[in-house]
Amino acid sequence: MNGNRFGRLFQVTTFGESHGEAMGCTISGCPAGLELTEEDVQADLDRRKPGQSMITTSRGEPDDVSIKSGTQDGYTTGTPIGMVIQNKDARSGKYEPFITAPRPSHGDFTYSAKFGTRNWGGGGRSSARETVNWVAAGAIAKKLLASEGIELKAHVNQIGDVSAPEVSFEEIKAHSEENDVRCAHPETAAEMQELIEAYQEEGDSIGGSIYFEARGVPVGLGAPRFDSLSARLGQAMMAVPATTAFEFGLGTEAREWTGKERNDDWEFSEDGDPVPVENDHGGIQGGISSGEPIYGEVTLHAPTSIPKSQQTADWETGELKEEKVIGRHDPVLPPRGVPVVEAMLALTLVDFMLLSGRLNPDRLDNDPGEYDTDYHPSNPHNE
Amino acid sequence: MNGNRFGRLFQVTTFGESHGEAMGCTISGCPAGLELTEEDVQADLDRRKPGQSMITTSRGEPDDVSIKSGTQDGYTTGTPIGMVIQNKDARSGKYEPFITAPRPSHGDFTYSAKFGTRNWGGGGRSSARETVNWVAAGAIAKKLLASEGIELKAHVNQIGDVSAPEVSFEEIKAHSEENDVRCAHPETAAEMQELIEAYQEEGDSIGGSIYFEARGVPVGLGAPRFDSLSARLGQAMMAVPATTAFEFGLGTEAREWTGKERNDDWEFSEDGDPVPVENDHGGIQGGISSGEPIYGEVTLHAPTSIPKSQQTADWETGELKEEKVIGRHDPVLPPRGVPVVEAMLALTLVDFMLLSGRLNPDRLDNDPGEYDTDYHPSNPHNE
Amino acid sequence: MNGNRFGRLFQVTTFGESHGEAMGCTISGCPAGLELTEEDVQADLDRRKPGQSMITTSRGEPDDVSIKSGTQDGYTTGTPIGMVIQNKDARSGKYEPFITAPRPSHGDFTYSAKFGTRNWGGGGRSSARETVNWVAAGAIAKKLLASEGIELKAHVNQIGDVSAPEVSFEEIKAHSEENDVRCAHPETAAEMQELIEAYQEEGDSIGGSIYFEARGVPVGLGAPRFDSLSARLGQAMMAVPATTAFEFGLGTEAREWTGKERNDDWEFSEDGDPVPVENDHGGIQGGISSGEPIYGEVTLHAPTSIPKSQQTADWETGELKEEKVIGRHDPVLPPRGVPVVEAMLALTLVDFMLLSGRLNPDRLDNDPGEYDTDYHPSNPHNE
Amino acid sequence: MNGNRFGRLFQVTTFGESHGEAMGCTISGCPAGLELTEEDVQADLDRRKPGQSMITTSRGEPDDVSIKSGTQDGYTTGTPIGMVIQNKDARSGKYEPFITAPRPSHGDFTYSAKFGTRNWGGGGRSSARETVNWVAAGAIAKKLLASEGIELKAHVNQIGDVSAPEVSFEEIKAHSEENDVRCAHPETAAEMQELIEAYQEEGDSIGGSIYFEARGVPVGLGAPRFDSLSARLGQAMMAVPATTAFEFGLGTEAREWTGKERNDDWEFSEDGDPVPVENDHGGIQGGISSGEPIYGEVTLHAPTSIPKSQQTADWETGELKEEKVIGRHDPVLPPRGVPVVEAMLALTLVDFMLLSGRLNPDRLDNDPGEYDTDYHPSNPHNE
Repeated sequence: MNGNRFGRLFQVTTFGESHGEAMGCTISGCPAGLELTEEDVQADLDRRKPGQSMITTSRGEPDDVSIKSGTQDGYTTGTPIGMVIQNKDARSGKYEPFITAPRPSHGDFTYSAKFGTRNWGGGGRSSARETVNWVAAGAIAKKLLASEGIELKAHVNQIGDVSAPEVSFEEIKAHSEENDVRCAHPETAAEMQELIEAYQEEGDSIGGSIYFEARGVPVGLGAPRFDSLSARLGQAMMAVPATTAFEFGLGTEAREWTGKERNDDWEFSEDGDPVPVENDHGGIQGGISSGEPIYGEVTLHAPTSIPKSQQTADWETGELKEEKVIGRHDPVLPPRGVPVVEAMLALTLVDFMLLSGRLNPDRLDNDPGEYDTDYHPSNPHNE
Repeated sequence: MNGNRFGRLFQVTTFGESHGEAMGCTISGCPAGLELTEEDVQADLDRRKPGQSMITTSRGEPDDVSIKSGTQDGYTTGTPIGMVIQNKDARSGKYEPFITAPRPSHGDFTYSAKFGTRNWGGGGRSSARETVNWVAAGAIAKKLLASEGIELKAHVNQIGDVSAPEVSFEEIKAHSEENDVRCAHPETAAEMQELIEAYQEEGDSIGGSIYFEARGVPVGLGAPRFDSLSARLGQAMMAVPATTAFEFGLGTEAREWTGKERNDDWEFSEDGDPVPVENDHGGIQGGISSGEPIYGEVTLHAPTSIPKSQQTADWETGELKEEKVIGRHDPVLPPRGVPVVEAMLALTLVDFMLLSGRLNPDRLDNDPGEYDTDYHPSNPHNE
Repeated sequence: MNGNRFGRLFQVTTFGESHGEAMGCTISGCPAGLELTEEDVQADLDRRKPGQSMITTSRGEPDDVSIKSGTQDGYTTGTPIGMVIQNKDARSGKYEPFITAPRPSHGDFTYSAKFGTRNWGGGGRSSARETVNWVAAGAIAKKLLASEGIELKAHVNQIGDVSAPEVSFEEIKAHSEENDVRCAHPETAAEMQELIEAYQEEGDSIGGSIYFEARGVPVGLGAPRFDSLSARLGQAMMAVPATTAFEFGLGTEAREWTGKERNDDWEFSEDGDPVPVENDHGGIQGGISSGEPIYGEVTLHAPTSIPKSQQTADWETGELKEEKVIGRHDPVLPPRGVPVVEAMLALTLVDFMLLSGRLNPDRLDNDPGEYDTDYHPSNPHNE
Repeated sequence: MNGNRFGRLFQVTTFGESHGEAMGCTISGCPAGLELTEEDVQADLDRRKPGQSMITTSRGEPDDVSIKSGTQDGYTTGTPIGMVIQNKDARSGKYEPFITAPRPSHGDFTYSAKFGTRNWGGGGRSSARETVNWVAAGAIAKKLLASEGIELKAHVNQIGDVSAPEVSFEEIKAHSEENDVRCAHPETAAEMQELIEAYQEEGDSIGGSIYFEARGVPVGLGAPRFDSLSARLGQAMMAVPATTAFEFGLGTEAREWTGKERNDDWEFSEDGDPVPVENDHGGIQGGISSGEPIYGEVTLHAPTSIPKSQQTADWETGELKEEKVIGRHDPVLPPRGVPVVEAMLALTLVDFMLLSGRLNPDRLDNDPGEYDTDYHPSNPHNE
């Protein structure tokens, strides 16, 4: 209930504050037999890390992950995977004006009121730095999903009032990593980049949104109602810092569609299976996956840390004052949010794969490494 | 993980299918000492029940609740509250064409694929009939919240392309129950009613949305990240049948706002406390309540059960066929969804009130009834 | 956290007080396709019910179970199973002397102190009547286990200072239900019966213990440490009312054995698999099942309700008084505790079977009834 | 479900294998404002660490803890506390004979069968090295309990057939740390030491037991049944490596006591409150604390690693072989188990203190350090 645990069978537990000594997470419930090295995790961390382009914060964090447990000879062992990422470039000095005067629309006031204290340097636990843990965990989830033929990808589809046209999943995979904005439509990406730089120059920031899609999700994931795929995705995505909206399928547009328009008729697939003619339902029916692509959108508001003068109220002195949030901040969140959204999507799906028994909770069939330490004659998974 | 449990300290567990014998729910974690009778629960059930107007299904369910345990002399005792609601008017006959041929955009196919069977009469567990349990539980949650000065209300703010202008919380409380649509803006309600009837006449249905708001929520509810107020609200609302979008604060609009525009400066309240000048943040900062009203919106797609001819694929015969969904169905969901959204909002908030220690998990201070059976000299709550 | 929920994937949620209107439980996570009728559940309820012999309370409860949801045509559907058992013979009158003066060693004082109220008639929620729900749920768990070749049985192995010699699993199955004491060793059973009747006559009660054993449990259930089979069994058994000790394998005797004596060497089974030469380890090694029988013992203290004069302190009047607990009470608990211990063992094991993926969480392969509503081409469980 | 998480509101999540790089744990749910430094944790770790005497393993682990997050200026901040303890002296060489031939009564076979692999060096995750994490977490729990006047202590009360006479809580506190055996009765401790050394010399090991007691626990902790104090203590203690029995109050002796003998009459305390005349009930009535001392016993079997020749079955070669477990092992477990049992007792109690609202889940009233970053006008906890 402390907000640092996610998942039911594939469980992630995190720790760390923005300007503390280290970030870290523990994965419980990863089956044995998955090939896993630090490089696998690092690849996604590099997509999220600060300083990767001109439109991200310049804080210098290499975000090198160290796996402390749970693997042997390059394979997971079924035991908890502990990972630690050191904080290297945490300079807190510029936050001092805000120790007792909350930054506008930050968590400063709410944290201080809740806990009676807070790590005032850099947002502490409410900082998006926490998502480094999610991306590390998500990288493992993605590998597990890939072993079952599930792939997923996200890209930035809107920044301010610049929105991308619809692009195919193949295009997203091909192009979203080709530009700093992580928009899979190159022309729109260029326009977005310009817009972001304009706001950056005038000391402001801007909102945007991320489109996500998963393919290869088998029919039957999710459970009626509170554990429906959409409810769990809703929790996962709304946990992403700065998120103000979660949509799947038609999203908010669905309010204007009639039943006849939105309903997807059934036909037969080549294999003779019933399949929906279209996918206006977003891959989820009655809370359970239909086998069609699962897609949706997440809206992230503009970063609240801006070097523009804003009014705050100092509870120590009782005085109003004008302050600028000086620091190394992102002018826009979606470009670095793409791997975060992918991570939460992967963590949600892998959990359902385990819950549905489609992933063996104890071990994959992969060769678990150098020493053949396995033995299970009576284990049906072995047959 | 079976999708019938919600909440961490205030826990709701439900059972029942649309055309089964009874619906029921068990509340665990309700403190002792709350005044509670069946009438308290019935009031909200009546707002949700079928047959209440011309624009709801005509299924005749009185939805009479029976409390089986957890109260004594009109007060809760701190032990689990078991409630049962009989199903009285469950006629399944008309669903027979769809036993092996899924209704378009229903959960028929996904349920059959997941469980290898399903209650084919009337949607079974995926039916919105399940929400009778949520409303029953939510009624208790609302009473607990009210005892702490928290009130909440929802109304229908859009049907199809007819949307209501912004109305105040006072207006919502005053007017949302005055018309069948449950829109607090009377002129818009009339327009919505016309629109719904038009779709109803032509055998179609239409989507819409519900606005919700809570007032009096103290500063400090919620926890960093995965258990943030917004993440848990996201799960709660996305569990509502037919929901395709959840927004809080600016929602999807936030993508077009700059940081400067959206950030809320701080000033002092009359009592000398820091308060935000505006509430563009929707009452939640860093995942934790700011003391400002919490508000947002939920989009519900059009009902999928329509008496229009649609194509389905029969997996037994291997044939495509055209079928109409004959039955007693709602032409639009938001009017009956209003108490459901309120219930999920109440259940989420009451859970956080308990988690934060603001509600005593063991007992309220109310007089627990006729017999004075209490004794706790060493209990600090007693002092 | 309200004490009425057990299990992680096979989840039981209960409600009901001893002298309330009804008892009930909801099972979440039972796979679809299990043949299940009320008779299956009733058989175990009859073993637990009051009034079954001269050495049990004479309270007249038929304990008829009614299944409200989760089955269709005699098979489970994968959705929550709601069960209700009416209380028929709840006369509270004789508890009045104890409303504000706690019965010795009952939960009266602790409940009143915790909740500031209590169902003072007959123990309310702390009454062992609650275990009717456990036995109902356990009956379903046993059926699931049986479908995987796991069987389990308990019997009374000690009452007061009369203890039974070691009997084989086959003997337990054959004889434990042949006498009122539920001791599988007939001569000892007779001796126990005499002892119980002697205590009963003089208005006293006596303690005892129950031996349990499970066979056919596959290798590999349980997880390192906090979720070890022994830890989860410990919780399950210590929840049984009046339990003061839980032992598995050698139990308390282990403190006097050396490593060499207790260690079980390995040999090969006929199939060429490593198997322990003996089973001093009790079927659990490193918290995980070894494939050998799991066995242990539970100690239940003497019933606290006795018609002997005892001293209590009235917090209303401030006076000490001597009172007898008049009512219909058991002179000894283990005979009716046998099905309760079996139920908790079954619930624990079935949960681990689901967690290990050995039981498909969505559906068994049984034919799910009259209508062939199943469809899952892409579901590997179907292959 | 992966066995590395304990607690409901005070949550511990662990990682690490005996011969891996590091051990670690994350505490979620520790309120802000607790004074906490690494020294506080280290003190208990030193009581558990290897090499502390001639009757413990000689493995050279300093067990230095490093707190990575969750504190500031010497106080907890309410955010997750990440702790890491490096493994320094992990030499695995001598385990090679057992890679494919399981050590008798170890977890080697069950782990290999479950996961299809295992960290074969030194027991991996099933090693009692994991308990270093529990002791670290328990040290924090103890500090929280102490702030509420709750103290707890354990000592070794039996080794082999040498058992200590009953000693008072004051004696346990005064003497249990004065000798290597951690028995509070000095004469018995000397006898135990001799016995252990005798077994050690002949290459064998021996079992024993630990008595624990907690004082100052307020009335009203625990919940009816599944979350009763005894059930949760049962899980906690049975998770301790090598535990085969858990008893509280009279434990297994209760089977021979009559109701009249065991029942504790009520009298009035000096303050006029009802209190039990004796404490045969062990401080728990109806699953809820009575305000009396909570006491009980845990039995630990003899260490399974002994340098005596034992038979194992090699699944690779299909041959039986005689092997000795060469390594640095403890000849007896209770002396180092004392801080482990205390930790589990503390973790269980602190969780109930939070669940009952007696500990504020957000923050203690302590001054949270150098910067006065708190603000909560509307927070009733502040008043």
